Amino acid sequence: MTEKAFQDYYPDQMSYCFGCGRLNEHGLQIKSYWQGDETICTYLPKPSHMAIPGYVYGGLIASLIDCHSTGTAAAAAYRAENRNMDSQPPLRFLTASLHVDYLRPTPLGVPLEVRGRIKQVKGRKVVVTSTLSANGEVCARGEVVAVQVPEGLIPVGKGT
Amino acid sequence: MTEKAFQDYYPDQMSYCFGCGRLNEHGLQIKSYWQGDETICTYLPKPSHMAIPGYVYGGLIASLIDCHSTGTAAAAAYRAENRNMDSQPPLRFLTASLHVDYLRPTPLGVPLEVRGRIKQVKGRKVVVTSTLSANGEVCARGEVVAVQVPEGLIPVGKGT
Repeated sequence: MTEKAFQDYYPDQMSYCFGCGRLNEHGLQIKSYWQGDETICTYLPKPSHMAIPGYVYGGLIASLIDCHSTGTAAAAAYRAENRNMDSQPPLRFLTASLHVDYLRPTPLGVPLEVRGRIKQVKGRKVVVTSTLSANGEVCARGEVVAVQVPEGLIPVGKGT
Repeated sequence: MTEKAFQDYYPDQMSYCFGCGRLNEHGLQIKSYWQGDETICTYLPKPSHMAIPGYVYGGLIASLIDCHSTGTAAAAAYRAENRNMDSQPPLRFLTASLHVDYLRPTPLGVPLEVRGRIKQVKGRKVVVTSTLSANGEVCARGEVVAVQVPEGLIPVGKGT
């Protein structure tokens, strides 16, 4: 596991995402890291993140898979160019499509582990598959098609 | 548009969902209604619900589509049985799979409209397709496979 999370390399103006922006004080602020050829993110849901009592809300699961996957896509793109995530120009990805299969109810109250794998890197597109586990058991599977943010959408200011 | 939202018919112990539970004070508390054979939900994102400045976070879009679709599934199941949503036994749905295609960046600061359509009702399974629009323009499309909550998962207590 590296010391600094993928998201900690994002430029300030790209760090307000509700799911993964370190500067969004109301958001989830997830952190993703390499672990060999996989990527890993651990998140402890809040008590309010419930679907029905005792189980995690599916929208949170989708959000974790979404942001961990776009972070993984960015990390993979840097790795494919054989450069560090703090080198220029910055690479940032948005979600083109998100698919989640909910395999079993996800227990609330324990850390969730999202593991990402790079399925494809092709031009500006990266496909990431993932599992979300609780207590070592896979509860959901995800697939995200991430595309590099078009330059016109990258904010130039601080962008609050 | 009916007076009472689908979610307002959910029994108390099923009303803590982060996305649609009227009793989850930290949640989104979305409200869904019939409009002819379609269902509709309008939600104004909070300023913190951003992806990059000016645009809505994809995880929120997934969450709105998710909960509006499970609500639509429940309403469709009651309608298929030709009974009101306050009749017994209560029908409540969970998400088996969620797919979202993000067609274009969704502007932040305006109400989002999610429209659901019943694609299939088969036994305990309902498939709902949906669009999410901003300023009258479709920004995302969703498809949710919802399944009726197994009786063993329905909490009997107040369940906080």
